[in-house]
Amino acid sequence: MTVLGGLLESAPDIVNVGVESFAGPPAVHGARVLSLDWRPPADGDDGLGLKLARLVADPAIEEANEWALERMLAVRAHWVDVARAGDVLPALDAERLLLHAGPPIAWEDMCGPMRAGVVGAVHLEGWASTPEAAERMAGSGEIAFSPCHHHGAVGPMAGIISPSMPLIVAQDPASGRTAYSNLNEGAGRCLRYGALGEDVIERLRWINERLGPSLRAALRGLESPIDLKAITAQALQMGDECHSRNVAASALLTRALAPELARHADIGGIEALDFLRTNDYWFLNFSMAASKLGTVAGHGIAGSTVVTTYARNGVTVGIRVSGTGDRWFTAPAPMIDGLYFPGYGPEDGNPDIGDSAIAETYGLGGFALAAAPAIVGFVGGTTAEAIATSEEMATITVGRHVEYQIPVLGFAGSPVGIDIRKVLDTGLEPVITTGIAHREPGIGQIGAGLTRAPMACFAGALEAFDVVPAKIA
Amino acid sequence: MTVLGGLLESAPDIVNVGVESFAGPPAVHGARVLSLDWRPPADGDDGLGLKLARLVADPAIEEANEWALERMLAVRAHWVDVARAGDVLPALDAERLLLHAGPPIAWEDMCGPMRAGVVGAVHLEGWASTPEAAERMAGSGEIAFSPCHHHGAVGPMAGIISPSMPLIVAQDPASGRTAYSNLNEGAGRCLRYGALGEDVIERLRWINERLGPSLRAALRGLESPIDLKAITAQALQMGDECHSRNVAASALLTRALAPELARHADIGGIEALDFLRTNDYWFLNFSMAASKLGTVAGHGIAGSTVVTTYARNGVTVGIRVSGTGDRWFTAPAPMIDGLYFPGYGPEDGNPDIGDSAIAETYGLGGFALAAAPAIVGFVGGTTAEAIATSEEMATITVGRHVEYQIPVLGFAGSPVGIDIRKVLDTGLEPVITTGIAHREPGIGQIGAGLTRAPMACFAGALEAFDVVPAKIA
Repeated sequence: MTVLGGLLESAPDIVNVGVESFAGPPAVHGARVLSLDWRPPADGDDGLGLKLARLVADPAIEEANEWALERMLAVRAHWVDVARAGDVLPALDAERLLLHAGPPIAWEDMCGPMRAGVVGAVHLEGWASTPEAAERMAGSGEIAFSPCHHHGAVGPMAGIISPSMPLIVAQDPASGRTAYSNLNEGAGRCLRYGALGEDVIERLRWINERLGPSLRAALRGLESPIDLKAITAQALQMGDECHSRNVAASALLTRALAPELARHADIGGIEALDFLRTNDYWFLNFSMAASKLGTVAGHGIAGSTVVTTYARNGVTVGIRVSGTGDRWFTAPAPMIDGLYFPGYGPEDGNPDIGDSAIAETYGLGGFALAAAPAIVGFVGGTTAEAIATSEEMATITVGRHVEYQIPVLGFAGSPVGIDIRKVLDTGLEPVITTGIAHREPGIGQIGAGLTRAPMACFAGALEAFDVVPAKIA
Repeated sequence: MTVLGGLLESAPDIVNVGVESFAGPPAVHGARVLSLDWRPPADGDDGLGLKLARLVADPAIEEANEWALERMLAVRAHWVDVARAGDVLPALDAERLLLHAGPPIAWEDMCGPMRAGVVGAVHLEGWASTPEAAERMAGSGEIAFSPCHHHGAVGPMAGIISPSMPLIVAQDPASGRTAYSNLNEGAGRCLRYGALGEDVIERLRWINERLGPSLRAALRGLESPIDLKAITAQALQMGDECHSRNVAASALLTRALAPELARHADIGGIEALDFLRTNDYWFLNFSMAASKLGTVAGHGIAGSTVVTTYARNGVTVGIRVSGTGDRWFTAPAPMIDGLYFPGYGPEDGNPDIGDSAIAETYGLGGFALAAAPAIVGFVGGTTAEAIATSEEMATITVGRHVEYQIPVLGFAGSPVGIDIRKVLDTGLEPVITTGIAHREPGIGQIGAGLTRAPMACFAGALEAFDVVPAKIA
C-alpha cells in the first residue's frame, strides 16, 4: 500500500495554519485537525512585510536596541520626594494645564471616565463650582490639556494630574533625570476610574493636605531614599507583577514608611497608615514612575526599534519608539477581556485606558505575568497560561531584566524592551493587565482583566521607521 | 539473533534499584545504568514491614486519618492576645519552670545553644546574676525544664520560654482552644540561636517591657482579632512557606498593626514599628502558634497514624502521633544541609533544633516549598526541585489543605497530615526548612538550610501503634 493510497483510504491528519475556520469542514468529515495559531508577518501587509524582512536582520538595529536596553536596565529609580505638581511642572499653574493619560486628545474627543476626571480635577482646583460649569470651562478653551507622558509623568486610568496634586518624584541618581506619578487613591470610588462626587473630592483633598505632606516628611526622615527597583524586584518574588497586582510591594513599602509616618502623627501620619493598611494598589503609581524613568533612558536612540511608551487615553492607544522620536503611533483603544464586578458586563466597559502600561513597556505587568498567576484567574486562566504568556512576551523583546527575576521561570529575568520588528514578525501583540472603568462618566471601576496592544500601532511605527529622523530626547 | 545473544554481544542496559554503589562496577565496564532511588519499606525491617503491609490498607485507619485531617483543617487561628507567659501558664512562676524546644531533655544532656538559652533566660528573670551562677542553678535542680509542646506552646530553635516573656495567644474560636508562642527576636544575635550577651538580654527586656505591651494594646485597638490562617494563605501566594521564609506574612501583619501601634507611641508603638520594619521572620512565631492550634485538633484520634508533632531539641528529634497519645518517638537529631554565613561551616553547626517544624506538621515549610523556591537557593537547588519536594511530600500525607494553596501547583492545596504509614512505605522522610545554630553556646545563628525528619521516629511510632492505647487529648 502506497502512502498516497493510505491517505485516501483513512481519515486524514491535517495541520491548519492561520485562519481557524478552515479547520471546521475537514473536522466535520472525521479528519484530525491541528490548528496552528499563525498570522502572516507585518499584519499581512506586503510592502510592510518586505520592509520588515529587510530590517529584521539589520545589525545596526540590533546594536541600537542592545544599547537602548542597556540604558533602560542601568537606571536606578529612587523615590526622593513628594512635591506639588504645579511646583515641579510649572506649566500646570501657568497655563491651567491638566495632564491626562495616553496619547494627545482634545476635550470633545475624551471618553466618559476621562471627562469625569477633568470635571473632578477642575472642582478640586476650585476653578469651577459645579460639574456643569467645569464642563463648560473644559470645552471653552480656558483649560489646556496635555499627555502626562509629554511632561515626564504617568497617571493610571484617566490619569488626570492637576496643579495641587502631590506627585511622587522618582530620580535616577546617575543622570539626575526624574519621573513623576500622582498618589494612588486606593480602591472604591476614585477619580482615576471616572467616579465623581463629594466623597471622591474629599479624598483628593485629604491626599493633598494630609497624605502628601506626611509622606514627604516620612521620606525625609529616612536615612536614605527608597529604592523602587529593589522593592519591585522583591515583589516579583512575592506574587506581584507590579501593574495589576501590587500587594507585596505595597505592604513592603508601607512597612518601610510606618515608623516615620507614626512620628508625623500631627500632619496626618496615622491617617496615612490607616489608608495604607488596606491599599493593595498603593505601589502601582510608584511602579509606574520607576518604569517611566527606566523607559525614558532608552528613548531617542537612532536606529532603535524598541518601544519606549505604550499609553491609552480610553479612545486611542499609542506607542512611541526609541528611534522615531516623540511621534505617537496610534490605533483605536481595544476592549478588555476581564472579570466584572456584580451588576456590570462588557457592554459597560470603557476601552483600554491609562498610562499604567508603562509597566509592560518596562517588562512588568503582562510581561511578568508568570510571577503573578493569581491575575489570570480574573479571566478563568491557569498558572500554566500565566507562565506561557511571559514566555510568549520574551519572543517580542530585545532581552530580559537582570534584577527583575521570576521564580517560576527558574529566576530568569522578566522579558523587557518590546521590539516593534518582533511584534510584527511574530504577530504577537503585547499583553497588558489592567483595570476596567465604566464607560459613562461618574461611575468608576467595574472590573479588571487582560488586553493587548493593537498590531496597528506597531505597523504604523515600522512604516515611519527610518523616515522620521531619530532625535535624542 | 536471539534476545539473549544480543544481551551478551552488546553493552547491557541496567536498572539498579536501591543501593547506588551497585551501579558502579557495571558502569565502569560500559553498561548504561539507571539508578532508582528506592528504599525497602519500613526501613528494611522485616517484622515492621509485615505490620506495615497489614496497616496500609486498613479502612479503620483511613477513616481515623480522614477525621483527624478534617479536624486539623477546620481550625481557625485567631491572634487574640499578647500575655505574660507566667500568667497564662502559671507553672512557670510556681515551679521556676523553663520551657524548651523538642522532646523532653535534662539540663546535662542539652546542646550548646539550648544551654545558652537557659542561661540567658535565668539572667532575664533575675534568678542569677552571672552566667556561671545561672549554669550552677540550672544543674542544681532549682529550675524545672519541660517541652513547650507539653504546655500547648511552641518555641523556635532553643525555644526557651521563661515566665516574664510575652506570648502570642492564638485561639480557635469554635473550640476555645489556645496555643502559644513567644515573640520573634529578629535577626542578628538572638537567644533562640544560643547567642548570649548584654545586647541579647537588653533586647529581651525591651520585648518584655515595650514590644509586648504595645502589641497587646494595638491588637485590642483593632475591630476584630487577626486571622492568622488568612495571612498564611495570602503569604503562600507571595513566596513564603511560613517556616524559613516569612517576608510577605511579616509585611502584611506589620501593615495591619501599623496604625494602632502608631496610636500607642507612649508605650513603645513606634519603637515596635522600627523593630518590625526590618524583621522578615516576624511572622514565624505566629505561623508556629497557628500550626500548633491546627495540629492539636487532630491529636488523640484512636486509630489515626497522622503525625501531630515533630520537634527537635538539638540532641534528639521526636514525633507524636494522633493514635498513640502523648508518647514521643525519638531519634538522634540530624545535621542540616545548608548555606553557612561567612566564616562558618558544617563542622560548626548544631544538629537540628526547634519547635518550628510544627509548620511542616501542618503542611507548611518543606511541604509548601513549591511556594518559596527562593529557599532552595540556600542549598544550590532550583525552582523545579522546590516543586518536586512539595509533590514528593504529597505522597506521605493524608491530604491537602483547602485554604493554603500554592500558585505554581495550579493553586492545589499544600500537602498536610503526615501519615507514618506512608513515610515508612515510600521511604521518604519529611523535608524541613530551618535555621542553623552554632553548636557552641553563646554564638548564635550561622546559616539556614534543609533537613529531614529521620525514618527511625516513624519506625518507632509504627512499632508502638495499636499497642499504646489512643487517648483523646
